[in-house]
Amino acid sequence: MRPQTPEQATRDAIEHLSTLIHGIKVAMMTTVDADGSLHSRPMWTQDHDFDGDLWFFTRVRSHKVEELEEDHHVNISFADPARERYVSVSGRCQLEKDPRRMRDMWSPALEAWFPQGLDDPELALLRVSVQRAEYWDTPTLGASGPDSSASNLTFS
Amino acid sequence: MRPQTPEQATRDAIEHLSTLIHGIKVAMMTTVDADGSLHSRPMWTQDHDFDGDLWFFTRVRSHKVEELEEDHHVNISFADPARERYVSVSGRCQLEKDPRRMRDMWSPALEAWFPQGLDDPELALLRVSVQRAEYWDTPTLGASGPDSSASNLTFS
Repeated sequence: MRPQTPEQATRDAIEHLSTLIHGIKVAMMTTVDADGSLHSRPMWTQDHDFDGDLWFFTRVRSHKVEELEEDHHVNISFADPARERYVSVSGRCQLEKDPRRMRDMWSPALEAWFPQGLDDPELALLRVSVQRAEYWDTPTLGASGPDSSASNLTFS
Repeated sequence: MRPQTPEQATRDAIEHLSTLIHGIKVAMMTTVDADGSLHSRPMWTQDHDFDGDLWFFTRVRSHKVEELEEDHHVNISFADPARERYVSVSGRCQLEKDPRRMRDMWSPALEAWFPQGLDDPELALLRVSVQRAEYWDTPTLGASGPDSSASNLTFS
């Protein structure tokens, strides 16, 4: 077996994370407030292939966007109790208002929350550049429990 | 209707949060690393009545305990996709090695991960003093989606 190049390792990590989070519709995004306290909220995940960044639709004027302007660090946690799968994704987050990307990622289901659709001036995307992921799934949980060491994925 | 005293408001918030998280076996605990990055991991919740603090068994020597020594802030997120219920709990966390409390909270199910049980010198509790909680459940999600304003609970 030939040694893996860093590029191949990153591609493998992306593919692995993509499989782990597939089908989990809602993730919890944690951000840091000005006083250091940590808040999380459910975010609708996108169906698109994961290529190293995670994307979420948001309103421009929201408390989490204010928090992210001060501190870009986020954690995205994916919990799938039925399959006993838990994933922690650490990354940095920024607001993007790219009309073409918003068009590409838009799905009619989002109209429930953004009734004006793509014409809503408050509509934007949050791009999370993934730096590290850890996961626990049935085999690892069974072996050593939720408080055990995670399996790691690194994105360089 | 008489105005609520702050004590009664806190008691009501505790009772409400207790109902919201009831039956969710695993929560994700997010902590801040020395470089500012945010990590989360699944934690086994305790069956005991919630009285304003959340408790989790942990090993003393673990990366999250190191993180918590530097920054006490934590977020505990509870996700119940089947019931469309998502809860964010903000608080401060400290390690406690109180043998009586550990005895009170111990359950045989924990032996899978702590085979030495209560005699394990690495066994300890994490106490999260809850400061604020936000939640989204089916009615609020239906009305305005996961990116909407939360219902708030404050613990004073």
